[in-house]
Order: sequence, then structure tokens, then C-alpha cells
Amino acid sequence: MKADLVIKNARVVRHDGEFHGGVAVKDGKIVLTGSDESLPDATRTIDAEGRVLMPGLIDPHCHLGVKFPFAEDMRTETAAAASGGVTTALLYIRNLKESYLPFYEERKALGEENSVIDFGFHFGIQREEHIAEIPEIVAKTGVKSFKCYFGYEPDNPIGIVPATDGWVYAAMRILAKVPGGVINVHCENTQIASWIKKEIAATGRQDLGAYTESRPAFCEVETIRRMIFLAEKTGCSLHLVHTSVGMGPVLAAEAQARGVHVTVETCPHYLTRTCYDEDLDMRAKISPPLRDRNELEGLWAGMLNGSVYSLGTDHVPFLPKKLEDLWTEFPGVVSFPWELSLMLHFGVHQRGMPLSRLVELNSFNPARRFGLWPRKGHIDVGFDADLVLVDLDEERTVTHTGKGTCIYEGWKLKGWPVMTVARGDVVYENGVVAETNYGRGRCVTLPA
Amino acid sequence: MKADLVIKNARVVRHDGEFHGGVAVKDGKIVLTGSDESLPDATRTIDAEGRVLMPGLIDPHCHLGVKFPFAEDMRTETAAAASGGVTTALLYIRNLKESYLPFYEERKALGEENSVIDFGFHFGIQREEHIAEIPEIVAKTGVKSFKCYFGYEPDNPIGIVPATDGWVYAAMRILAKVPGGVINVHCENTQIASWIKKEIAATGRQDLGAYTESRPAFCEVETIRRMIFLAEKTGCSLHLVHTSVGMGPVLAAEAQARGVHVTVETCPHYLTRTCYDEDLDMRAKISPPLRDRNELEGLWAGMLNGSVYSLGTDHVPFLPKKLEDLWTEFPGVVSFPWELSLMLHFGVHQRGMPLSRLVELNSFNPARRFGLWPRKGHIDVGFDADLVLVDLDEERTVTHTGKGTCIYEGWKLKGWPVMTVARGDVVYENGVVAETNYGRGRCVTLPA
Amino acid sequence: MKADLVIKNARVVRHDGEFHGGVAVKDGKIVLTGSDESLPDATRTIDAEGRVLMPGLIDPHCHLGVKFPFAEDMRTETAAAASGGVTTALLYIRNLKESYLPFYEERKALGEENSVIDFGFHFGIQREEHIAEIPEIVAKTGVKSFKCYFGYEPDNPIGIVPATDGWVYAAMRILAKVPGGVINVHCENTQIASWIKKEIAATGRQDLGAYTESRPAFCEVETIRRMIFLAEKTGCSLHLVHTSVGMGPVLAAEAQARGVHVTVETCPHYLTRTCYDEDLDMRAKISPPLRDRNELEGLWAGMLNGSVYSLGTDHVPFLPKKLEDLWTEFPGVVSFPWELSLMLHFGVHQRGMPLSRLVELNSFNPARRFGLWPRKGHIDVGFDADLVLVDLDEERTVTHTGKGTCIYEGWKLKGWPVMTVARGDVVYENGVVAETNYGRGRCVTLPA
Amino acid sequence: MKADLVIKNARVVRHDGEFHGGVAVKDGKIVLTGSDESLPDATRTIDAEGRVLMPGLIDPHCHLGVKFPFAEDMRTETAAAASGGVTTALLYIRNLKESYLPFYEERKALGEENSVIDFGFHFGIQREEHIAEIPEIVAKTGVKSFKCYFGYEPDNPIGIVPATDGWVYAAMRILAKVPGGVINVHCENTQIASWIKKEIAATGRQDLGAYTESRPAFCEVETIRRMIFLAEKTGCSLHLVHTSVGMGPVLAAEAQARGVHVTVETCPHYLTRTCYDEDLDMRAKISPPLRDRNELEGLWAGMLNGSVYSLGTDHVPFLPKKLEDLWTEFPGVVSFPWELSLMLHFGVHQRGMPLSRLVELNSFNPARRFGLWPRKGHIDVGFDADLVLVDLDEERTVTHTGKGTCIYEGWKLKGWPVMTVARGDVVYENGVVAETNYGRGRCVTLPA
Ligand SMILES: [Zn+2]
Ligand SMILES: [Zn+2]
Ligand SMILES: [Zn+2]
Ligand SMILES: [Zn+2]
Ligand SMILES: [Zn+2]
Ligand SMILES: [Zn+2]
Ligand SMILES: [Zn+2]
Ligand SMILES: [Zn+2]
Repeated sequence: MKADLVIKNARVVRHDGEFHGGVAVKDGKIVLTGSDESLPDATRTIDAEGRVLMPGLIDPHCHLGVKFPFAEDMRTETAAAASGGVTTALLYIRNLKESYLPFYEERKALGEENSVIDFGFHFGIQREEHIAEIPEIVAKTGVKSFKCYFGYEPDNPIGIVPATDGWVYAAMRILAKVPGGVINVHCENTQIASWIKKEIAATGRQDLGAYTESRPAFCEVETIRRMIFLAEKTGCSLHLVHTSVGMGPVLAAEAQARGVHVTVETCPHYLTRTCYDEDLDMRAKISPPLRDRNELEGLWAGMLNGSVYSLGTDHVPFLPKKLEDLWTEFPGVVSFPWELSLMLHFGVHQRGMPLSRLVELNSFNPARRFGLWPRKGHIDVGFDADLVLVDLDEERTVTHTGKGTCIYEGWKLKGWPVMTVARGDVVYENGVVAETNYGRGRCVTLPA
Repeated sequence: MKADLVIKNARVVRHDGEFHGGVAVKDGKIVLTGSDESLPDATRTIDAEGRVLMPGLIDPHCHLGVKFPFAEDMRTETAAAASGGVTTALLYIRNLKESYLPFYEERKALGEENSVIDFGFHFGIQREEHIAEIPEIVAKTGVKSFKCYFGYEPDNPIGIVPATDGWVYAAMRILAKVPGGVINVHCENTQIASWIKKEIAATGRQDLGAYTESRPAFCEVETIRRMIFLAEKTGCSLHLVHTSVGMGPVLAAEAQARGVHVTVETCPHYLTRTCYDEDLDMRAKISPPLRDRNELEGLWAGMLNGSVYSLGTDHVPFLPKKLEDLWTEFPGVVSFPWELSLMLHFGVHQRGMPLSRLVELNSFNPARRFGLWPRKGHIDVGFDADLVLVDLDEERTVTHTGKGTCIYEGWKLKGWPVMTVARGDVVYENGVVAETNYGRGRCVTLPA
Repeated sequence: MKADLVIKNARVVRHDGEFHGGVAVKDGKIVLTGSDESLPDATRTIDAEGRVLMPGLIDPHCHLGVKFPFAEDMRTETAAAASGGVTTALLYIRNLKESYLPFYEERKALGEENSVIDFGFHFGIQREEHIAEIPEIVAKTGVKSFKCYFGYEPDNPIGIVPATDGWVYAAMRILAKVPGGVINVHCENTQIASWIKKEIAATGRQDLGAYTESRPAFCEVETIRRMIFLAEKTGCSLHLVHTSVGMGPVLAAEAQARGVHVTVETCPHYLTRTCYDEDLDMRAKISPPLRDRNELEGLWAGMLNGSVYSLGTDHVPFLPKKLEDLWTEFPGVVSFPWELSLMLHFGVHQRGMPLSRLVELNSFNPARRFGLWPRKGHIDVGFDADLVLVDLDEERTVTHTGKGTCIYEGWKLKGWPVMTVARGDVVYENGVVAETNYGRGRCVTLPA
Repeated sequence: MKADLVIKNARVVRHDGEFHGGVAVKDGKIVLTGSDESLPDATRTIDAEGRVLMPGLIDPHCHLGVKFPFAEDMRTETAAAASGGVTTALLYIRNLKESYLPFYEERKALGEENSVIDFGFHFGIQREEHIAEIPEIVAKTGVKSFKCYFGYEPDNPIGIVPATDGWVYAAMRILAKVPGGVINVHCENTQIASWIKKEIAATGRQDLGAYTESRPAFCEVETIRRMIFLAEKTGCSLHLVHTSVGMGPVLAAEAQARGVHVTVETCPHYLTRTCYDEDLDMRAKISPPLRDRNELEGLWAGMLNGSVYSLGTDHVPFLPKKLEDLWTEFPGVVSFPWELSLMLHFGVHQRGMPLSRLVELNSFNPARRFGLWPRKGHIDVGFDADLVLVDLDEERTVTHTGKGTCIYEGWKLKGWPVMTVARGDVVYENGVVAETNYGRGRCVTLPA
């Protein structure tokens, strides 16, 4: 057998361990993993020179097409993702129309025309009809993951329609019967946050900490507890997105011990930044907000002890921030290109997190959670050849040239992706994602 | 590259999934896993005909050399184990002398002269000196797993020296500092059990249920809770052996959620037999006792939801039972040859347990727990070629011809191992373990 | 000393025990409790003939002036209360104006012109301004008890303004600093209930069970949990009014064990009626709804083990029910005259509840909770002479002639009040409350 | 009616409140409580001059006759108790003979010949026969309270026979069926403590902290948890004597919330002394040991929030300590005369504990717990006239002249008892207990 691509002489890292050797790829899939001497001939053979070869990252949480045209974001941002080792991106997308079916077809088509990497969708529940439509959506699109939003006031400028507990309950009741169905919840008690915001805004404060203090950690904890209660009641599987509080993984672990199926996502920014960092201002406004060091350390505890389930970037390219008023500034930052590097630097190098745990967080768990297993998220026979080659020792400085707000500009990080392989194609090497890759990505949320 | 052995056309099942294809073995180790077309030539190539290929079982809990000579048991019983798909056996062995070092050398040597499969040791703490010796034992034998016994009265005829809470505490305090160190505890509150036994024995009852009722489930629950408390206090990793109560996995899951490192083992008999089964009598006396259906179902819940960590046989070949008096009868049964088959029949076929979960319980988790990772417990490049080929559909009747007491005689089970490969050698095929295999097993608990 | 009133030869029952003898009253207060031979001469001496003398009931939960004029209700309903042994009534009253101060003055004046018995107020938080006004309300009215309503949809026909979590949080934060301050919450998750109601109403069902199933027990449990969380966060004292679910007292007991100050009220109807009672229809609609037998028994468990704190009638005289449509029917029933009798019949006689526990629930605890201690709620030197004489053996049939809906018509109950003494005046005897008593009641929530 | 004794012009404090006025006593019982003007004539009338009148203390935990003759201790120590405001003492007594019945008769007779105050018994379970005898003991002596000892090694010089879990379980099973039955447990895991003692004693340390560190707080916590588990399992009422750890009241409160009947006693020394107090040495050895400030504060939290149930002195007059070796020194201190004063000084004055809470801890709760209600523990019509008059402002220095070890010598305390009345007799006034009082005390644990 002659392979299309062989990568040899690698430290192959998977969620459960590692070996020295390599992989052979044919027709976009891995056909063999083995010791170097067992690897076959190939059209292209890459010598990893002992560097780390991991499954490509699955970023299960990003927002594209929010402020810039969707088609455009699907080019620029998926290229950025590929440069960061991301080989699959799952988008939270929202649609105010009665049905999600036309929207799905449109976004799928646009995505496949433009995207560098594979992609899929979660759908936001934005009106009552969306709940009733869930079974049909599952059947006709393969999307089984729905998001309810609690973090936004009714008149928020982003246009998000906030959920009620009734919506969540009704959706959970339906999703509990869908194999692989999952409800995602943005947990913040906005009724309380609105009250506090009114008080703090009245003081005239404009510092980033003021924003955080206006929606304190206990607001998120309260909603997490409420959602876990409803998940327990309905038997629905619950995913807590962009968890920013240390109690999140603790509450989830306790609930899991009682048999509740609940998982915790956190994001690189909650692990690397606090609202009191001196160089940050309203540019770093995100939702939920950056927290303090105590919450940050709580999240790291969950990263290291297994109670954080997965990482998501919450990457969202907004127009440049206006820097006029903390309270009306749009929230959101971008992080595709540095997500992996941040985790290598702060997790692997600084805190001794095993590389296999990082693979679990970035690839294995997202694939299991969102129906991509046994196709993505692993380096194994039969899986898509989605791979990232990592130089653990490379030191490079973050320089952001793309859209959106970067909160790491100028940081020197150790550990960077040097090559990304997506379904067998080398889409990123020598620091470049070639434009020829636009439109090669395929939608992975498909009807069964 | 020409391999020594290739198994192809298999449904290769691992703890985290499966693929169709095969493995190549050279020098006793797996060098490649791949699709059929990617497999190399080999000295011997076996066509699995689509059957299941799993990692060989690691039985982390057996007792050999208790009533029959150790050397003899290491022949007869490891052959029985090999016929059941077991490729590594970990023995709980006890020694009343001051030091474990000579005992280790002797047992290791005798084992390597006789055993069919690889083997290793846990040591029982039988006197105070053993606790102080732990660091030296770890350094000079590689054994990091020690057992304390609560289930026996001081004058028990087996000669087991029961632990005190002081022993457990002292051992935990030391083991908490040993990387990979683990305390195993036989959990039963014997002070309470003794009291109740006196009452029930006085009634003249001789049925198996009388024995169980004399050491009720809450006695085991109490000691589990106490051990978890001490593990939490000392930071020591705790393994609850032969758990027979449904609360075991529940309590462990709750403790894990608080950050306590505690794992639960159960045994095939607690999952398939109750003390009220009409065909059973004092022959089926074991320690802890068979329980009722409620406890059995609680354990299955833990098998399916992940809160049971691993399976052990507690295989112990005693002399034939005397059948004279329930209360003085020796406890213990054998199950090497049927352990896997029982789990295939009752777990996989009857309860829909995924095969990958069975691999996790039988191979992956025991290897991780007892320092055999990344050498055993997985089918992957660089691992020992310890494999078992399984025919899921074969139906065969249990017939016990060896030593010890079998409590499944005449049961027709579906799903049997048909070939066992140990470090690349086919040690069991066509229903036979050849005598040439005696003495090929090697001790796996070795100084670093 | 010559007393105004002596009651002798009584079984004097208090929250913590009982004795045989009597009390002497002078100037409306108890001056002495003693054995019969120690009692002084008095203007009127009543021989209790061995019957039970208890502290008068404090009904901490009623609604007067909702549909009928306040002044009128304060005559008719307080007379009804006096006939039921109630000597103090605390009214939940609401006011949509910006300030509560004029409303307090008006209601206090009207009450003192008309009421037979002493009375006081809790105030409903109905707009943001009410929260900021709390400190001034406390100072100028003595009212320290505020209610937030979660059980009503925004457009409810009663005109109740539902609370937000923001309101509750803000009110709790203030009340946590008020000695004796307490937040009362009507706990039901109306967002979920609205969703379910829509579904059930669409089926055309008009039976009482349909109403209950449209706002199931878990909706109340959810809100109880949320409120306890906020009470714990803010340090505020929380009172769970009209608790209808068995988990209520359980959750409160757990929270108390953690140091949260939370108390549970339930009502006679939740202890004596279920939504599936065959003789009931939409007439018995109340909010929260009658539940099933399981919840009823859970509440009785709390009555007997101490985890229910107090009883309230939730007495509300609405216009006669229309009996046209379950879903638009107004909720609410009356129970002043039978509350005590229901508890004597079903609690003391049927379930063996000690009389002293009934005094605790009806008098001692409400007095402690709402600032009436050490003036009311006890038979002791210096306390107001608020007393009820009870004939434990009298059997009488419930016949309702007053306003509002009675759900016990025709029930034969054992144990009835036969005389009520309010601040030393015999206001009810021989089955009659004389009209001369109108206007003798005084407001007990007064500025310090 | 002419009374024997009237105390007037007092601040009468009870567990649930207070009033100004007084009490009238006839034939040893209270016949009246009332305002000053309502009090009758009496043979002796005492003007309290506004000072506090409380129920006499019930000390539910002392040991008399351990080293000195029982008859002698019943004179000297009950006189000391009376001087401290104690009017009833409950003795933990032990007997190694098969039956408790002769022992009870003997101790009862000796007590009634010598004691100044009323007294009763708890019995220690010291051999298996004592457990079987419980029903007969209850019937023939009225003693329903039994103690099991875990804090002593088998060969302890005091001669205490330590319990097994089997004994506790068996006793609990029986006591669960005895109305008012209670098991008392001395909670310490002596198996662990023995191990640690061996280590610490080997260092040569002789300081008091060494003794405490040899039996650390977690040993007591472990046994408390185990006992609560058994109480929950058997339904038996559990009393945790001389609790020295802050987790004690916390665990009890959690268990109570689950419906377990468990109460916590602590002692004045655990609330006022730590093992690291610089002036203390092996003289202050007690069992369980004095702890550190953290445990002390935890106990005060329980004193103030209600989770400590009652106070006991654990008064035990040993021979003078030898001061030779920490490890063999006998444990135990005396505190009858200062118990109340210590609580007034450190609780009421220093920490603002309400006097009514102190009455609850010292009189009301012990009476309820140990079958003395409604006869003792309260100032109310029909109760024994057991009273103590307290001067809250008196400052006096502790000077110990009696037997045993005092650990407060020279402390200036504020708040002292000035008169003690026992069943209507003034037994202590002007600083003296007259010898004429010897033999007036009566046994209160009597067959029904
Ligand atoms: Zn969100
Ligand atoms: Zn997002
Ligand atoms: Zn064992
Ligand atoms: Zn075993
Ligand atoms: Zn309400
Ligand atoms: Zn109400
Ligand atoms: Zn003790
Ligand atoms: Zn004691």
C-alpha cells in the first residue's frame, strides 16, 4: 500500500497517551499508526523531527458572521483557525425566522464555498417555534445541540433573544429523548446583573472591573445551579458554555456523581486574564466577563483534575471596539490563532498539564460531545486525518493582524503549531494558509 | 518490515472505541495498528474473520498459593487464566515475616519459573514493620499497592492479620507521598459482623443467606465511608476491592467529585449471583458475601454509568469445601476461565454494555491504576502484544475441572475467548494452553 | 391584688409544655400563671373545667381588602378569625404607589376603626421604589417583613406585580442589615408554569388536577432552591410562605444546618386536601395549587419533625367564584374559623401531634418570626392576654356563611375553640363575636 | 394561699425569654410565677433586687467516686456543685459486674444518704451482658442513657473497658425501641491515636500540645461520623458527649436535617482553654484533649447558632496529678463551682450570648434529653423549685480548695451565682453550703 501522506518520527500524542512513530494517511483518512520502521511509502513523507503530533483542535464554540458577512468570516476566520491548529469549528448561529431549515441550508452552502476547515453548527433557540422544530431539525440537519441565552437583557444591541426557564425546560424535555441531544446554556442571572449594573453604572466607573462587578460570579453560579436542577429533572444532557467561575466545574462534578449528565466548557481568556489586569480596559469586555484571580485558579483546578470537560474559544470577530462607554461597548474577543499556544504556554509548560489532557480537552471530548466521534478528535485508524504538528519549544510573540479584538498582543508564548493537516491536506505550513484552501472545508453536522 | 505476527480482519476494540483492521507484532510488542490493506507481511498471519480483538485482560485481584503450593498454582491457575483471556494477573500475597523483600524475591522467582502469563504483586500489611518498610519495598520491588484487611476476625482460620485504623492511617500517610502508591482495603466492619454472626449462628441457620445477613451491606458501607474519610484526610489514593454493595460506587463518585482519589473494584460474582439463589449453598460462601438483587443492580448501575472502576476475579483456589458448617467453611471461589464470558453474556449481550466499556474495566483501568501503563492494557504502538480474540456469538456451557469452587457450573454463556496472545505468543488456541508455556510469564512489578 | 380576669382549672398548654391551673389578667396583660389554689380573686373568674387553654393564634398570612372594601373585611373577617381562636392577624398588603407610608397610615387607621383583633402588616414589593424605601418603612412603620411574588404572570388579573431575581436580591441585601428583617417569597417558577399551562389548557381539561399539573411541584422546588441560594449569598432571613411541596421543609432543614436562616410556612389546605379529591373542582383553585397525597404527607412529616416552622391560613375572601373556566378563575379560599379545628382534628387527634407543637406552629413561632415577641404568642407573665379556650372533644360540622370560598363544607371536625380572649377581653363566647368588639383591635406593626 | 418561699423583684430568665417578677414555692414545687404585685405571702420572702433568677443547672456529665470513695464524693462534690448553681447532677458510672441492678441500688442509696442535690445516672456499657440487660435496667431503674467509650486503649489505667462497634450497634438497636432511650458515645478513634502517640511519645515531648497532637481532631471527627452513621441506620438517639471539635456541631446539624436524632454536648474547658495556653502543662490533660483556638471558635459558633445542644462539666475529682510523665498522667479536671461563671463571663459578657440561650444549654435541654422533663429544667408551675440567683456583675477570682485539678486558678470572672435553691430549700447562700444539706438530694432516675 502506498499512502498519500506519512508523518514519521513524531511524538504522537492522543487523549490517553502517546508513542513514538507516525501515521499514514490515504484518501483523507488515517489508515495506520505505527513505529517508524512500520510506516509505508507515501506521496509525501514528513519528518516531524521528534516534535509533537496531535489531533487537530475541534473548537466547539465560535461565532462567525455576526458583524462581518458570514461568507467573509468563513474565509478569514477559518484560515486563522487553521493557523492555530484548529481543524474543525462548531459555530453557534442564531436565526430569528420561524424555521432553522432554510437557514441551515444557506449557511452550510456558504460555509462549504468558503471555509478552509470542516465546520458544523449549534442553533440558538430564539423563539418558541424553534423548540417545537427540534425533532425536525435533528432529522434534517443532524444538528442536535441547541443554545439558550440567559446573559442578555431583552433589549441587548446584539439582537440575542434571551431564554426563559420555560424555553429551557421545554427544550430539555425534547432533547432528553434525542440520542446525542444537548442543551447549551449561557449561564448568568441577568435580572440580578441588571440591577447591579444600574447601581455601578451610576457611579460613573468605566474600568473593566466595574463591568465584572456588575455581573458577579454568583449570578453565573446561580444559573448553573438552576440549569443543573432542570437537567436532573428532565434527564437532558447539559453543556455549560464559556464557564468563567471556579464553582462551575465543582457543581458539575457533584451533579455527575448523582448521575446528571453535565459538562463544563471554559475558554482560554478565563484561564489567562483577569478583569483587574492593569493593561486591560473596555476592549476586553466579554460575556460572561473576565473574573478575578480566584475564579481563574478555580478553573485551572478543574483543568487539571478533570472536572473541566472541554475548551472553546468563543472567538467572535466584532467591528473594532468604540472605546467610548464601558456599558454600551460590544462584548467579544478573538483567539483562534493563539488558543493552542496559550494552553501550551500556561498549561503544559507553566502548570505541568500533560499533553494528553490537552488533547482530551481540545479534541477528544468535543468530538464525543457533539457527535463527531468516531470520525474526528483522535489519531486512529479510520479517523479523518486532522492533525496538528506542534513545536513545544518555539517562542513567538502574539501579533494580531486580523479582525476583532485580541487581548494578548505582544505576549511571548512558548509552544506553537507549525503545521496543520485537515482531512489529509496540509492547510497550514511555513506560517501560511494558502488561499487555495478556501472552500475545501465541509459541513460536519449532517442528517443521519 | 516483516512482522512476527499479524492479526487482520478484526473488530479491534479498545477502551475508547474500535476500528476494523488489525495489528502487527514484533518482538512481543505492537508495532502497528492499521486497516487491513496497510498490514505488513508476518511470520504468522491470523485472519480474525471479523471477530473482536481486545487487549488481554489484566486481572488485578487474585490469590494464588493460599492452600496449594504457590509454584503449582502459578502453573494451573495461570493456564486457566490464559484460557479466559487474562494476560496479566496481579496477586494479593501476604507474608507474616518482618520484611517483604525476601518474600518478593522468592515469589517472583517461583512465578517466573512457572507462570504462563505475566504477573505482579500487591502486598498485604500484616504487621507494623510492613508499614515502615513501604518506601524500601517501593524502591526494591516496584510494588506500590498494599492491602489492609478489615473483613476478618482476629482468630480467622485463613491466618489473615486484620488491620487497625491506625495501620491504615499510617500506611496512607506514607503512600500519599509515593507516586502511583495505592492502599487497597477490604471493607467490612467485622466488629459489628461478629456480633450479628453470634446471634444468627445461634439460630442454627445454615443457608447461604444466613451468612450474608450475618455481615450485612451496611457493615461494608460503613467501612467504605471510613476509608474514604481517611483517604481524604491523608491525600492517599484508595482502591476499594471486591465491592459488593451498590452504595460503593455511589460513595466513590461523590468523593471523587470532592477531589478524593478513590476507585471501586467489583467482581463477576457480585454481578451475577445473589445469596438467595436457590441452587447455592455454603459452597458459595465468599468474603464479602454474595448480596441480594438490590445490591447487584446497584453494582450494574455503576458498571454502566462509569462509577465502577475495574473488575477483579478474587479468584482463589481453596481445597474442596467441607460442606459441614456454614460458619466455619472457608470462603472463596474461582472464576479465571469465565470472567470475560460472564461479562460478555450478562453485560454486553444482556444489558447492552459497550465492548469498549468492558475493555476499560478489564484492561485500561487496571493498567492505569497499578503502574502497568503505558505497557499493558491497550492495543497500541509500543504496548506489549497482550491480546484476546473473542467470539461474541459462541455459546458454551461452563464446566469446571480445575481447583477451587465454581458457582456457575452448567451455565450456558454467550461470548467466549477463542485465542489469547501474551507478549506476542499465542498461549491459548483451540481450547488448549500448551504446557510449553509454563515459565514464560514475567513479573511486572519491578524496581524502577 | 384583684385581677380583671382569671381562668382557672385549665390545662394550660404552651409551646414547651403544659400545667394544670390558670392565669390571672390585669389591664389586658397576664400577671400570673399558677396552680388553682394560687390564683387571686378577679372581676370575672372562668372555670375552664379542665379544658385546654392556649395562646391565641397568630395568623401570619392573610389577605383582606382584596375584593371587598378593606374596612368591611376588617370587620367581617377579623370577627371570623376571633371565632376561630385567632387573636392577631398579619396581612400581606400591596400598594402600587411609589411609597408605602401613606398606605400604611390609611390601612392602620381603617384597621383600628374596624378590627376585632390586633393586626399587623407585611408589605408586597411592587415596584423598584419600594426596595429603596425599606429602611424608611422600617423606621416609620415598624414593618420589617416584605413579600416578593413569583407565582404570577405579568398580566395576572389580580394585579400583582411579579418580582424579578434582581428585586429579591436587592431587597435581601437591604433586609440582611435590618434586625428582624425578613423576606417572604411566593415560590413558583412561573416561566415554566406558563409553558406547561399553555400545553395543558390546549387539551381542554377543566378539572382541578389540570391546574395543579400545569404548575407542578418541581416549579416550586426550583424557586425555593434559588431563594435559599440568594438568602445564603446575602445573609438575609427568608420565609417561604404557603409551602405546598414536601421538599420545602427538607431543603430548609438542610440550609439551616449550613447556617442559612430560612423558615417554612404551610397552610391547612395543603395538609388536608389534594387536587384529586373527588368533591373538588375549580372552586378549590389556589396559588400555589393543592398538590397530591405525596406532597401532603411530606408536609405532615415536616409538621411532626419540626422542619415546618409555622402555619398561615392564606385566608382571602374573594367574590364568589364564577365556575366558568379553570384557567381564568380567581384563586383563593377562606379558613379563619376552621384553621385551629382542622389542625386539632387531623394533627392532634389523627396523627398524635402534641398540643405544644401546635402552639409552637400557631403562636410561638409566628410571634418570634415577625417581631411580636415578647408581647404575643405565649401565656406568660407580661404577655398580652391573648388566649383561646379549646374543647378537644367537641364535634361540630363546618358550615360557612361568610365571604369567600370554603373547601370543607359539611366536614365534621373534632376539637373546636369555645372562647377567645384578646388582650384580656372575651371577644368570642357562646358561638358569637359581639359587634361591640369592632374597632377594639390595634395595629401591632408600629415604629420602634 | 401562703407560700413557703417567694422570690420577688427578679429578672426571671427561662430558655425562651424572661419577665420581671418572681415565683412562689410550696412543698418544694413552683406554684406560681407572676408580677411582683401578684406574689403571695410566704414563710420566707427574698428580694432579688433585680438580679437574674434562672432554673438551677442540670449538669448531665460528671464522674464521682472514681478515685475517692463514692459516698465522700457525693458530699464534697455535690456541695461544690450547689455552690456553682447546679441543682441536679447526672453521673456516668461504670460497673464491671454482670448486672447493673445491685450497683444501681447501692449507688442510689449512698447518694441519697450523702448528696446535697438531686442526682441521677447514666450507665457505661462495660461488658456484653450489659447490652442484653438494657430493657431490664430501663424497667427497674429508670436509667435510659448508656455510654460507650472509644477513647481508651484496652489496657488503660482507669479501667475503662472500651466499646466495639458491635457493642454500639447492638445497644443502639435496643435503645431505638426504648422511649427516651439514648446512647452516649465518647468519640475518638483510639486505633489511630495509639499509632500517633507511639510516634510522638518517642520524640520525648512532654508538653500539653504533644498530648493533643497525639489524638488529633480528625480522630474525633471520624468517630462522630461513624456513630452518626450507626444512629441513622438503627434509628437510635445519639448524644455526643464532651465534644471538643468544631466539626461536631456541624455534622450533627447536617444529620438532624436528614432526620437523625443526634445532639452535641461540649464542656466549659473546650470553650475557654487551648492546649497551647502557655500556663498549662500535663495537669490539664483531659480526654478528649484540649484543642487549638480554631476548634474552640468552632464550638462557640455552635453555642451561638444552636447546634451545640447542652453543656456538661465532665467534672472528675482525681487524686492530685503526679506531674511525672505526660503519657501516663491521669486525665481529668473539676469545674462544678465555675461552670456557670465561666459561661457568664466568656459567653454572656464577652460574646453577647443571650441568658435564655444559656438556660437552654444548662437546664432546659439536659432536662428534655434525659427524662427530667417536665419536672426539672424550667421555672414554671408544677416544676421542682430548682433555682439559682445570679449576680451578673459580681467579679470574683477563682480559688480552688477542693479535690481534683482546676485549670482556672486565679482567673477573675464576671458573673457568679449567689444563691441556690434546690426543691425549695436554700442550699447555698452567703458563700456557704451548710452541712445540714448532706443527704437531702434524691435520685431522679427511678423506675416508672
Ligand atoms: Zn454565550
Ligand atoms: Zn459564545
Ligand atoms: Zn478481601
Ligand atoms: Zn481477595
Ligand atoms: Zn403567594
Ligand atoms: Zn397569600
Ligand atoms: Zn468520655
Ligand atoms: Zn466524662
